[in-house]
Amino acid sequence: MSDFNSNDIILLSHGGGGGRTQALIRNIILRRLGNPTLDRLDDSACLSIPESELAFTTDSYVVNPIFFPGGDIGKLAACGTINDLVMQGAEPRYLSLGLILEEGLPLRDLDQVIQSLAEVTAQTGVRVVTGDTKVVERGKGNGIFINTSGIGVRLPGTDVHVSNARPGDAVIITGTLGDHGAAVMSRRLNLETDLASDVAPLWTLIAPLLRLPAIHCLRDPTRGGVAAAVCDLANSSHVGIRLKELALPVRNEVRGICQLLGLDPLNAANEGKAIIVCPETETDRALQLLRSHPLGREAAVIGIVTAESAGLAVLETAAGGERIIHLPLGEDLPRIC
Amino acid sequence: MSDFNSNDIILLSHGGGGGRTQALIRNIILRRLGNPTLDRLDDSACLSIPESELAFTTDSYVVNPIFFPGGDIGKLAACGTINDLVMQGAEPRYLSLGLILEEGLPLRDLDQVIQSLAEVTAQTGVRVVTGDTKVVERGKGNGIFINTSGIGVRLPGTDVHVSNARPGDAVIITGTLGDHGAAVMSRRLNLETDLASDVAPLWTLIAPLLRLPAIHCLRDPTRGGVAAAVCDLANSSHVGIRLKELALPVRNEVRGICQLLGLDPLNAANEGKAIIVCPETETDRALQLLRSHPLGREAAVIGIVTAESAGLAVLETAAGGERIIHLPLGEDLPRIC
Repeated sequence: MSDFNSNDIILLSHGGGGGRTQALIRNIILRRLGNPTLDRLDDSACLSIPESELAFTTDSYVVNPIFFPGGDIGKLAACGTINDLVMQGAEPRYLSLGLILEEGLPLRDLDQVIQSLAEVTAQTGVRVVTGDTKVVERGKGNGIFINTSGIGVRLPGTDVHVSNARPGDAVIITGTLGDHGAAVMSRRLNLETDLASDVAPLWTLIAPLLRLPAIHCLRDPTRGGVAAAVCDLANSSHVGIRLKELALPVRNEVRGICQLLGLDPLNAANEGKAIIVCPETETDRALQLLRSHPLGREAAVIGIVTAESAGLAVLETAAGGERIIHLPLGEDLPRIC
Repeated sequence: MSDFNSNDIILLSHGGGGGRTQALIRNIILRRLGNPTLDRLDDSACLSIPESELAFTTDSYVVNPIFFPGGDIGKLAACGTINDLVMQGAEPRYLSLGLILEEGLPLRDLDQVIQSLAEVTAQTGVRVVTGDTKVVERGKGNGIFINTSGIGVRLPGTDVHVSNARPGDAVIITGTLGDHGAAVMSRRLNLETDLASDVAPLWTLIAPLLRLPAIHCLRDPTRGGVAAAVCDLANSSHVGIRLKELALPVRNEVRGICQLLGLDPLNAANEGKAIIVCPETETDRALQLLRSHPLGREAAVIGIVTAESAGLAVLETAAGGERIIHLPLGEDLPRIC
């Protein structure tokens, strides 16, 4: 399957900026991701973007392990940054790719990761136009860290931001909670499960909604999960948010692994989901659009925005009580993305 | 001097995306780098850029040690990416900041690094508009790795690129060779020297030259030094390049440490220098502009572009002979930037 055998590994000299760096870039990066702009290997990519309203974002990916059920760090690095652009109402256009490789990394692992990233960019019409490769000594990294930054073009007329939730709005999630977090945890603990990360690029799911008159907020509940996202929305928009526990879509396997580990699916990371806040009158139309897309079939209304309890997110529990949803202090398990 | 004491260190939970991450971002990042765009802490920065011709670049910085004579990884991360934009004839405007921190990093070190970065961005009018912070376990990183990506606006009418050197052109360097490489090496080996890195943002030095009618190429000789840069120019432009060893400005201390370590100043990294290729008729004007700037006082013509020996860079040695300048295979010492 791979063009590399198990003796082909990253050496410190692959990061020196000389002949060995160039060979690595040609044989793996350009072969998988090449395009006229990237192929020039100039200090910067020259881009012609006539639209003036842009979105710009960056994320570093340090997920451990780098391969997990449903994806790997390459797929994650493409999807995560693409989705951060989408959450701002922007069509993703260009990515940068910064690699920090650890001496000893098998080239076939790097090649596999770059191939995964390339599949996502090809599928979404995004181009990697500039990059950088560094190598650190054994024991000073962890196989591979990836930074991707992205540039997108904001759709005219969209004004989605986290400060824009209004009393009377509905809170929608595009699918089940915690799949990414649970999949990575299960792999880290070598548990046998059917779990898979939900990591996916969300542009084609979200783009039709941006043409609705009144989408107020978009947020992807990654690190810190839905809990962190709704705390952020409540706080930034100075509104209350009430979620119904019984309305939260959670797979049985995810619920199971969370119970096993003493975790809450509300706090578990997602990498292919979005929270959408829109007027209650728009929910039918929004759900219809979402459910017609393979990534949105389990979309559901999970709560409402209130004028009361401004700044707070509250969960109406299955047992009929309620509790405040706290911003997690740290994270239940580190290096989830 | 610092607001942090030696017990304040990075914890894994600082990377969890919850309350502790937010506190870190407020107390260090926003305090040093805050601006209305960054302060929103949205998934992406929303930018309004009416100009359509943009440059986009990325670099990860893994320099070891993170503090060295003349700078630190923060100053380097700002200057390196700014300079990559400048080398494309672009005015640097926006930076992203991706941090990968190792558990146990003293917060005062992080604060110092961010302050250094902030000094450069303030001085050059560049804004950090989006960022990301991750934490890895002790022994899985090396204190701090930084990725910065940058967006710049290309000046109308400039067409500088590495494929644009033409026979009859002169090759200019804006100052002495190898200062950054030699300074980092001396610090790593605990040598007592007066060396300091040349790390500096080059926009104000280079901008006046971009208004000259005919600057053909700009290249900053970072990893791999002047050797890698001229090999790249010769190869990309299909021309020969002849450098005169006696014309190369090299500080005595740099020459000394290179001799000590068996290295060649031609291969040593620079972080505040540019190679400029322009018609021979423009050299007087270019040198005058460069030498009127504090960063260009030692600017010198170091060689010429020829039609012969296309694809090769050649050094006319001090002894009167000549040798081919090879692209270094790896690097003499790793993690120089």
